[in-house]
Amino acid sequence: MPDIVSEIASYLRRLFPICRSITGEGNRETLRILQELVPLKVLEYPSGQKVYDWTIPREWNIRDAWIKNASGEKIVDFQRSNLHVVSYSIPVHARMKKRDLVEHLHFREDLPSAIPYRTTYYKENWGFCLSHDDYMKHFRDDETYEVFIDSELKQGSLSVGELTIKGRTDKEYLISTYICHPSLANDNLTGPVLTAFLARELLREKTNFSYRVVFVPETIGAIAYCANNEEAMKRIGTGFVVSSVGGPGKVGYRQSWQKDSVVNSVIEETFREKGITDYKVYPFDIHGSDERQYSSQGFRINIASINKDRFYDYPYYHTSLDDLDFVSAENVAFCLDLHVAALRSLDRNIVYRNLSPNCEVMLSKHGLYETTGGGQLPVFGTRNRQDLILWLLFHCDGTKSLWEISRLLDMPVGPLFDLAEELAKRNLLVES
Amino acid sequence: MPDIVSEIASYLRRLFPICRSITGEGNRETLRILQELVPLKVLEYPSGQKVYDWTIPREWNIRDAWIKNASGEKIVDFQRSNLHVVSYSIPVHARMKKRDLVEHLHFREDLPSAIPYRTTYYKENWGFCLSHDDYMKHFRDDETYEVFIDSELKQGSLSVGELTIKGRTDKEYLISTYICHPSLANDNLTGPVLTAFLARELLREKTNFSYRVVFVPETIGAIAYCANNEEAMKRIGTGFVVSSVGGPGKVGYRQSWQKDSVVNSVIEETFREKGITDYKVYPFDIHGSDERQYSSQGFRINIASINKDRFYDYPYYHTSLDDLDFVSAENVAFCLDLHVAALRSLDRNIVYRNLSPNCEVMLSKHGLYETTGGGQLPVFGTRNRQDLILWLLFHCDGTKSLWEISRLLDMPVGPLFDLAEELAKRNLLVES
Amino acid sequence: MPDIVSEIASYLRRLFPICRSITGEGNRETLRILQELVPLKVLEYPSGQKVYDWTIPREWNIRDAWIKNASGEKIVDFQRSNLHVVSYSIPVHARMKKRDLVEHLHFREDLPSAIPYRTTYYKENWGFCLSHDDYMKHFRDDETYEVFIDSELKQGSLSVGELTIKGRTDKEYLISTYICHPSLANDNLTGPVLTAFLARELLREKTNFSYRVVFVPETIGAIAYCANNEEAMKRIGTGFVVSSVGGPGKVGYRQSWQKDSVVNSVIEETFREKGITDYKVYPFDIHGSDERQYSSQGFRINIASINKDRFYDYPYYHTSLDDLDFVSAENVAFCLDLHVAALRSLDRNIVYRNLSPNCEVMLSKHGLYETTGGGQLPVFGTRNRQDLILWLLFHCDGTKSLWEISRLLDMPVGPLFDLAEELAKRNLLVES
Repeated sequence: MPDIVSEIASYLRRLFPICRSITGEGNRETLRILQELVPLKVLEYPSGQKVYDWTIPREWNIRDAWIKNASGEKIVDFQRSNLHVVSYSIPVHARMKKRDLVEHLHFREDLPSAIPYRTTYYKENWGFCLSHDDYMKHFRDDETYEVFIDSELKQGSLSVGELTIKGRTDKEYLISTYICHPSLANDNLTGPVLTAFLARELLREKTNFSYRVVFVPETIGAIAYCANNEEAMKRIGTGFVVSSVGGPGKVGYRQSWQKDSVVNSVIEETFREKGITDYKVYPFDIHGSDERQYSSQGFRINIASINKDRFYDYPYYHTSLDDLDFVSAENVAFCLDLHVAALRSLDRNIVYRNLSPNCEVMLSKHGLYETTGGGQLPVFGTRNRQDLILWLLFHCDGTKSLWEISRLLDMPVGPLFDLAEELAKRNLLVES
Repeated sequence: MPDIVSEIASYLRRLFPICRSITGEGNRETLRILQELVPLKVLEYPSGQKVYDWTIPREWNIRDAWIKNASGEKIVDFQRSNLHVVSYSIPVHARMKKRDLVEHLHFREDLPSAIPYRTTYYKENWGFCLSHDDYMKHFRDDETYEVFIDSELKQGSLSVGELTIKGRTDKEYLISTYICHPSLANDNLTGPVLTAFLARELLREKTNFSYRVVFVPETIGAIAYCANNEEAMKRIGTGFVVSSVGGPGKVGYRQSWQKDSVVNSVIEETFREKGITDYKVYPFDIHGSDERQYSSQGFRINIASINKDRFYDYPYYHTSLDDLDFVSAENVAFCLDLHVAALRSLDRNIVYRNLSPNCEVMLSKHGLYETTGGGQLPVFGTRNRQDLILWLLFHCDGTKSLWEISRLLDMPVGPLFDLAEELAKRNLLVES
Repeated sequence: MPDIVSEIASYLRRLFPICRSITGEGNRETLRILQELVPLKVLEYPSGQKVYDWTIPREWNIRDAWIKNASGEKIVDFQRSNLHVVSYSIPVHARMKKRDLVEHLHFREDLPSAIPYRTTYYKENWGFCLSHDDYMKHFRDDETYEVFIDSELKQGSLSVGELTIKGRTDKEYLISTYICHPSLANDNLTGPVLTAFLARELLREKTNFSYRVVFVPETIGAIAYCANNEEAMKRIGTGFVVSSVGGPGKVGYRQSWQKDSVVNSVIEETFREKGITDYKVYPFDIHGSDERQYSSQGFRINIASINKDRFYDYPYYHTSLDDLDFVSAENVAFCLDLHVAALRSLDRNIVYRNLSPNCEVMLSKHGLYETTGGGQLPVFGTRNRQDLILWLLFHCDGTKSLWEISRLLDMPVGPLFDLAEELAKRNLLVES
């Protein structure tokens, strides 16, 4: 699919340089660009709003920031990389010796060429991030430096992108991604880009289920969204957090909190169908992304994630080396394809009820009786179409999804999707 | 048991020639003969009655049928075998060339000496069945044949035999067999014959449970019976379909839909007690006989079947080779014995409740205390009579049947049956 | 702990000679002495009271008993060992030949130096117990003997010691021991002695749960206590029967009736923590001590027992060889330590509920956010303190005890106890 790869590549390039955080104009600009792909609604939750145990912080924006050496030379410059400034740094303009400045400097000796990513959302502070190489090159004990951060913290709002896709039924799946990271490619610019393309695909299809697609700043945004949409969110049972889907490493998936949940099985079957046998499985953990919120007691949504280089798994995580060279649009397209396939399965995983629960139906009356039994080709294993029709009528009692029935029959769910739809069209099954 | 074998042999011989179908005089005559053994009530469900998704068809009767060749010689003759006519054939009297006749002729090249068994219950048609040998011998391309079927389809009724045996409690087990097959011995003349003898045995014993014994034409008869006895049938939890119990092959059993149901365990333990270690186990399948109706969602009865040469398992199935030479009265008597033994176990599988749930009872007060503990012989394994009494009083809480308790104690259920009855007589246990 | 060993030894010595039975002054004296350790309330249930299927028997007391030979020499003397008289013997004073006396004499040929222990609570009778050696030495066929039992059976009462220790919550654990055995050391003088010391320890600690500690005559005393405290007893879920805790053999524990109950796991983990890897496990059995009453249907308490030489396991059981030489105060102190440790675990096994079920709490607001993640030492395995805090907040939903959560996390429960208490102090968790 060369076209979609080019499209993805173009959005990665345009969105990468924007300075995002948990609030601010960078997030709004990001959502505006994604609105080219899907009609996102932008929700603004005001600073100071109480959202469960949390409070929406002041909105942060930044225009410029730098450190100059004694010669007036900019040795650290926000214009070159937005990672140079600790996110949510308060404004500062001062001259100071290295010994006072150093506690505001962040670098990684273990990755000397990388600018690390640091934030100070909930503690008033300021700081600069730089490569260890630059630190060694530019800073001297006796020198005085001028530091300048032209940022602003104000009563504003936190921005969330939301798209609700109406399917045939009101039952919803959740798709969530986070938009708070500045110029970091795999984690997580690839997340919102894939999500927007995924949403465009869902909009094009006529889905059975409804979909709630949200673009939130991580943690506080997910919490704010839950608090402002509590009733709807408490009705959702299953979803995805889209994150880290463009790296060069091995594909894998993070399991949802209930190990035997349908979403975990669907992902494994999707991998199998796509011929992917060598993949990573990450058990549910209390660390992770916004599944921490969505799987909390009040919601208990089974959230899984498909990843290509899951965060933590690659050394460039949360540094400037997680850039557009690290990811590829092909990888994102590959993961998009997996998400689409998994959601297509979930979209067909309907709970049906046999409308004639007492005894068998008369198959011939409904045009379902195969008179030439011997001539029927098997649909799965040794079972032919008529066998599966009878099994569906036997099992569809309004309590088990097709996926669960496929497990009882020890077979892939695919053939059941088609047959159940046909039986529903003939008014033998009804959605429950 | 030579007497019962002779009795069975005699009924097989008398019933074999009768032309049965899903309706008609042949079925009534069959039930009349079986009434010599047990006081069957004959129920008549009228043609046209709606029974769930089905409609009772018109009643079919046939007097004669043949095909004559150009010389007026009867080359196919219903009087020689009722299998020669496709069941539910409409009347016909015509002369036709082989090329027109051939679509009404049924034979099996793979079994050249066998007349196959064919029906056309729900599609107006007619036809003859004959051996491939006869077909090759008698039919020539250029010859004209006279065909004659003297049958009748009329507003009549479908006949069902029913016997309800009242036990001490109203809880019922179901025993069902089918009477729609013409001259076919193993499947299924042996079924109704065994069932009648089984019912006679149950009538002679003083049973704990009640028994509903039904003789129905397969599928439509079971459906009609369910529809006309819905409330009673929905209360039943367990039963047998009696079918194919006289062949020379290996004994086996078809499991009921819930693999861990008591009826399946009872059959396995019955086999064990009878020293039968080499038997077939057929898992529940959506194909089969009337368990398809009884196990449907509306009823969900756990129906098992004990078979000797289960249908499908022998090549003569549904052909004239399944005749009185294929089966034997000894085999039927052998299977009867298994059915009786299994039902005796089920009949004792009572759910009891300890009338003194708080603390232990004072065994000596009830004459149950063994003062000479050392002298007590073990009743099972290392457990003696008093141990088992205490275990029964511990476990009988009104929710678990004796069978389930035997599983908790990892022992055969037999000794518990006797002890529980004794404790009930002493008013320590009561049926729940 | 040398002090407690001396204390235990002193109580064993003082209590050993007292003649206890299921009623009588010996039991009251025993309870009076134990009142030095803990403020036991003594309850008296009157003779003739109906308690479920049983009736409190008359009270039995004995002053003296002997058998004299023809020379007037006391060849059996109650003053030398209270085991010499069958407990509940009616008064007798008679002269008789050996042939008439012998049916009232009890000895054990297999343990020729031991006086066996016998009772006749519910059948009026009398008897003497003596060693087989003495029997062979003193009894001759032609001699006449004088037998004398100065006992009394009167309308009195059955005595029970009870201590209820009030904890922070009303939820109770049960600790029960039996006081009906005369001079028998391991089974069961060690039981009430350990129980009294255990109760003293519980009184000194500020416990979370409440404790109901009872000293009852076996069987009839437990039944009487249940009948007179039915409502309270039916609310209890878990407990211990303390018995046989001073022998030289291997330590072990009797499992409670539900194999996967928390009390069984707690004991196993206690053993593990104490470095005890070689111990016996006795599955729940219908024989045993007062768990027979407490685990009956009406109560279904999960009662376990920690033993050192469990009754039946040593040949001296229920004979005069189970004396103060067989047991040691050190062994009792060792088992006391195990009981204390297991109860400390159970006492902390609280069911908590997260007060902020929707999304995560903001850890930093509650002073729980570790800014220097890297510096945190793991608390268990690879999990650090903050991981466990998050897991507790995830799992504490008001339905699972900490023990059950430790099983879900596949880790020991210890670290969870401390953290949960801390979270409760910070008003993040509340007891459920």
